[in-house]
Amino acid sequence: MRRFLDLADLSRDEVLDLLALAQSLQDKPQPNALAGKILGLVFFNPSLRTLASFQAGMSRLGGDSFVITPGQGTWQLETRLNAVMNGSSAEHIREGIPVLASYCDALGVRAFAEGRNLQADLAETLFGMIDGLCDKPLVNLESAVNHPCQALADWRTLDELRVPRRGKFVLSWAYHPRPLPLAVPAATLHMAAMRGMEVVVLRPEGFALPDALMEKARQAAAAAGGAVSETTDRAAALAGADVLYAKEWGTTTYYGDVEADARLRAELGDWCVRERWFAGAAPEAKLMHCLPVRRNVAVADEVLDGPRAVVKREAFNRLVVQMAVLHRMLA
Amino acid sequence: MRRFLDLADLSRDEVLDLLALAQSLQDKPQPNALAGKILGLVFFNPSLRTLASFQAGMSRLGGDSFVITPGQGTWQLETRLNAVMNGSSAEHIREGIPVLASYCDALGVRAFAEGRNLQADLAETLFGMIDGLCDKPLVNLESAVNHPCQALADWRTLDELRVPRRGKFVLSWAYHPRPLPLAVPAATLHMAAMRGMEVVVLRPEGFALPDALMEKARQAAAAAGGAVSETTDRAAALAGADVLYAKEWGTTTYYGDVEADARLRAELGDWCVRERWFAGAAPEAKLMHCLPVRRNVAVADEVLDGPRAVVKREAFNRLVVQMAVLHRMLA
Amino acid sequence: MRRFLDLADLSRDEVLDLLALAQSLQDKPQPNALAGKILGLVFFNPSLRTLASFQAGMSRLGGDSFVITPGQGTWQLETRLNAVMNGSSAEHIREGIPVLASYCDALGVRAFAEGRNLQADLAETLFGMIDGLCDKPLVNLESAVNHPCQALADWRTLDELRVPRRGKFVLSWAYHPRPLPLAVPAATLHMAAMRGMEVVVLRPEGFALPDALMEKARQAAAAAGGAVSETTDRAAALAGADVLYAKEWGTTTYYGDVEADARLRAELGDWCVRERWFAGAAPEAKLMHCLPVRRNVAVADEVLDGPRAVVKREAFNRLVVQMAVLHRMLA
Repeated sequence: MRRFLDLADLSRDEVLDLLALAQSLQDKPQPNALAGKILGLVFFNPSLRTLASFQAGMSRLGGDSFVITPGQGTWQLETRLNAVMNGSSAEHIREGIPVLASYCDALGVRAFAEGRNLQADLAETLFGMIDGLCDKPLVNLESAVNHPCQALADWRTLDELRVPRRGKFVLSWAYHPRPLPLAVPAATLHMAAMRGMEVVVLRPEGFALPDALMEKARQAAAAAGGAVSETTDRAAALAGADVLYAKEWGTTTYYGDVEADARLRAELGDWCVRERWFAGAAPEAKLMHCLPVRRNVAVADEVLDGPRAVVKREAFNRLVVQMAVLHRMLA
Repeated sequence: MRRFLDLADLSRDEVLDLLALAQSLQDKPQPNALAGKILGLVFFNPSLRTLASFQAGMSRLGGDSFVITPGQGTWQLETRLNAVMNGSSAEHIREGIPVLASYCDALGVRAFAEGRNLQADLAETLFGMIDGLCDKPLVNLESAVNHPCQALADWRTLDELRVPRRGKFVLSWAYHPRPLPLAVPAATLHMAAMRGMEVVVLRPEGFALPDALMEKARQAAAAAGGAVSETTDRAAALAGADVLYAKEWGTTTYYGDVEADARLRAELGDWCVRERWFAGAAPEAKLMHCLPVRRNVAVADEVLDGPRAVVKREAFNRLVVQMAVLHRMLA
Repeated sequence: MRRFLDLADLSRDEVLDLLALAQSLQDKPQPNALAGKILGLVFFNPSLRTLASFQAGMSRLGGDSFVITPGQGTWQLETRLNAVMNGSSAEHIREGIPVLASYCDALGVRAFAEGRNLQADLAETLFGMIDGLCDKPLVNLESAVNHPCQALADWRTLDELRVPRRGKFVLSWAYHPRPLPLAVPAATLHMAAMRGMEVVVLRPEGFALPDALMEKARQAAAAAGGAVSETTDRAAALAGADVLYAKEWGTTTYYGDVEADARLRAELGDWCVRERWFAGAAPEAKLMHCLPVRRNVAVADEVLDGPRAVVKREAFNRLVVQMAVLHRMLA
């Protein structure tokens, strides 16, 4: 495996194989599998779980890693083609990425959406450039509209919880003070569809996921025997749900318009997940979230501190599945 | 050993055992003792020695480490219980600490005093929460009122210098432009008392160490056959001293009141340790300091560059004793 | 080898030996050569290649490393002798450097020119202090007027390209929005002269390299059978060139005067290397640059994306030659 950029690049069987490898590495550690191998990690955007879990994962497999954080110890990197670089960026990714790739055996890159042009972000314009510049195995640590490591970890979490393949999976918009990117909702939606679930996207007006993402999920669902729908009706969405996956994202109707987004979300403070959401409709439903989560803003303490929250297990599974990805790439 | 939070949690024999283990690891390195083990390091506050010595210590024992610095590559972490997180912090330690602990075999955390409420800081409210959130071995890398790694390194330094168990140990307040936390004076005071020394706390009016810290030290002294007293009289304190341990801290009379602190310290610029402090009274006394030290503000060049300063040896001993702590926890 | 501070400290044979060792480590990796060894890296200034290549190089040789970045997770370090430290710096290098050295087996330090006093920078006043404070092997990761790792990597690149020992090497000033230090032009000039090349320094008025640097290069050229000259005539310089090495630096006539520098360079925007520079005069010439390079400001896309640019190979060779330096110091 030379690329881990999108769960959709893998067949269902390949996903299941990766999950089996993850379990096998848990059951029977291979502390020397990646001896002498080096992972380079480049963070254009902040990280906690991704940094720690990839560094720990390489260590657990006997390898090593280095971290580059543009703007923190390293200058800003320019990403625009043909830029006249007389501003704050001292180096272009056209040099930076190939050079860093030449120092390591695999590269992981985090580069969020620019959040101005929806079509450019949906096209993964920036990550596509990075892909083309890297002649080593490449891992997507979160791009404009994807986060395959999170998706794979969440799939494993669903399996561990014995959520049925055909179970009901509600991806719900949640409140946040600012518009966040579409990477996790896009990856989550597709993953649940690819797993074969009955997926419902619950979101207020103005926050529908873009057609291209919905259509991609519908195709994955069709292939796996599941279904994808969307609604603004919370009660209908939650009725009989096995899982509520909460996630914050920005307006898609006025994509990139921070003021329009602020006006829309000013009325949406009650999209903070609370216990009463589940009463009656889905008393046993699990609460998933990729973290970081703003307590009492996106999800209430009462939910995060109760038995339905499995967010810490999701985060631990990041380590577990990423070790499988690294092993498949480098062992 | 699952916790290294306070030297007072150990018996005197356990401290001596740790120091013996430290020496043994110096005499006979164990470069594979912690093979496959991972230390997570979380720095809510800046670090130089602690970061470098813990990373080097893990490496020397065959293990590995990762570093998380909230605010530097990682977002701010919220610490207040029940906070409505609509501000600058993107994640709560109630998620962050358990998740990071799940990636490693032991966690080290640095979290200074908040410096507003003396009782809350004395109670180690924040570190107590962190302790409760971490299901892996935990090392205190400096908390509100403790710094056991520094205390253990200083004990070793005193032993190396053959300072008598009953020797005279003067902990002296020193000038600094701003009020610093009580962690090092608290830990140093207790360590010297627990070692059985004649401990004198020398400080100006307004900077007495809190009763709770003095009482804890008196009890340790009583058990070890030493004594603890305090004074504002520099000449009396230094007479016959074996060690002057200089340390900066903020007013305790007006704890958390930066303006009152500034008024008090405006008159205290002569609390910069100089050679004339020692003349006659304690010509052979050693000068200790935990570092970082502001030259010619807290301690003069003439002292730091002369033979009585042992500050670099103290810093080296951080590495030595921390390897013993890690070995005891993880080997 | 206890120091790698200046290529001029080595004989020509010693340089050739290092390059041979570099090749040998490429041909036949030694993944355990530095097992148990630790490299400390201190970055007073930002880094990308240097950080990643030294960490990767230690890993590839079986060793480990830690990174300290004053101002990023670590407080500012004071460098002035006899400073009264009541400002923003919390620790002096007189403590910081020896303490960090005590934690590792070799130390690498990056400390750019202060850029105010040419004589002080030419004298390597700051790096000289660091040298005197470090009792472990020390690597210059770029100092006021030197960058021996870059120079050694570039020598290797010239060898790989089969550029003749007596070939024509043009070091050309290139445009940049701000005055940059002299470290790379100084190191490059000396390296090419020491290799025995016909070296021409091409630069506008006001940017002549200081006499001391020119004289050092002339002596190296004399010993190696080469020559050193300088000119403002681009066509004459480029005629028959084997290599154009582009580099940005600040005015030397008005050293440290940012306004005078800005006035001078306001007219020099056409010192952006373009393909037309080479047409006729040197169609086969290679374009070298140490990176980071501002595209379309210092060097045009058309050059960097064409076949004459070897900048990524130079960067890869940083890793290769630094492994030889580390091996020579620590194996």
